[in-house]
Amino acid sequence: MKKFEEKTVSSNKIFAGKIIKLFVDEVLLPNGQHSKREIVKHPGAVATIAVTKDEKLVLVKQYRKALEKITLEIPAGKLEAGEEPVACARRELEEETGYRAKKMKPLYSFYTSPGFADEMIHLFWAEELEQGRVNPDQDEFVDLVELTMDECFAAIEAQQICDAKTILAVQLWKLKE
Amino acid sequence: MKKFEEKTVSSNKIFAGKIIKLFVDEVLLPNGQHSKREIVKHPGAVATIAVTKDEKLVLVKQYRKALEKITLEIPAGKLEAGEEPVACARRELEEETGYRAKKMKPLYSFYTSPGFADEMIHLFWAEELEQGRVNPDQDEFVDLVELTMDECFAAIEAQQICDAKTILAVQLWKLKE
Repeated sequence: MKKFEEKTVSSNKIFAGKIIKLFVDEVLLPNGQHSKREIVKHPGAVATIAVTKDEKLVLVKQYRKALEKITLEIPAGKLEAGEEPVACARRELEEETGYRAKKMKPLYSFYTSPGFADEMIHLFWAEELEQGRVNPDQDEFVDLVELTMDECFAAIEAQQICDAKTILAVQLWKLKE
Repeated sequence: MKKFEEKTVSSNKIFAGKIIKLFVDEVLLPNGQHSKREIVKHPGAVATIAVTKDEKLVLVKQYRKALEKITLEIPAGKLEAGEEPVACARRELEEETGYRAKKMKPLYSFYTSPGFADEMIHLFWAEELEQGRVNPDQDEFVDLVELTMDECFAAIEAQQICDAKTILAVQLWKLKE
């Protein structure tokens, strides 16, 4: 395994923001040469697959500034400092959709952009949903949307569902049938 | 739809690197308040699902500096300036694995991290594979790994396959069975 490793020669912090940090690291490659790596550090996030009693996937419609576009995504959000992923998943699900889950089953965790970012998403399956009250963050404007499985696949085709975690979630729902 | 939109008040370029750019935008929210958005701009990428004649998924083992970890991922790479996604997919597949595909079927395109980055991956299915010669980039050190579907799902459980696009690819392969 050793032959792959890139040793850090120096790490230069370019930016530390509210959410992400940016570093440019100089690395020593396995062939003895030097190269630079641009790396975004992210606190990590959670996302939740929540299926209602009438077999609809709970989605959030929101404006994504990075894309300049409105998307349909499964409920998700960033981890607060020291927050357990399962607590974060419960909080975000309720804030964004009003739903509470009696059980939150961990599925798996994955990196979103391993080429330049360390963001990891912890994915959960919400079981035994109960309706509560929507209460989004102050700078968050979201609508609740519920779609059947066929509608989800149609939304993927239409590129309304257009992010990796939500496509992954729809596929997983289908595979669990 | 209008109520969601965030109007850009100002855009501040923080960094322009070899691969990514970082901006901090000030936005006007639908409620009239102002907020900041940290946005990574990325040239976009391709990824390819390639299944061999003996029903194994073609994967690339590589060190990911952002994760400080060795991963197993489907062949993928960044778009060069002006490059068509399908041409990029053919190039990256051959460079990283030595395989050439007679046909490259576009599947769909998805964003990897819509909360902070505009990176879009164009996903392809490689058909009629032919073996060629591996020829990675100068600063890229990769090994070819081929796994059966069962081995892929085991590698997801073991977190050797640990990124969204590759999990999505394995699931899609399973759904196409």
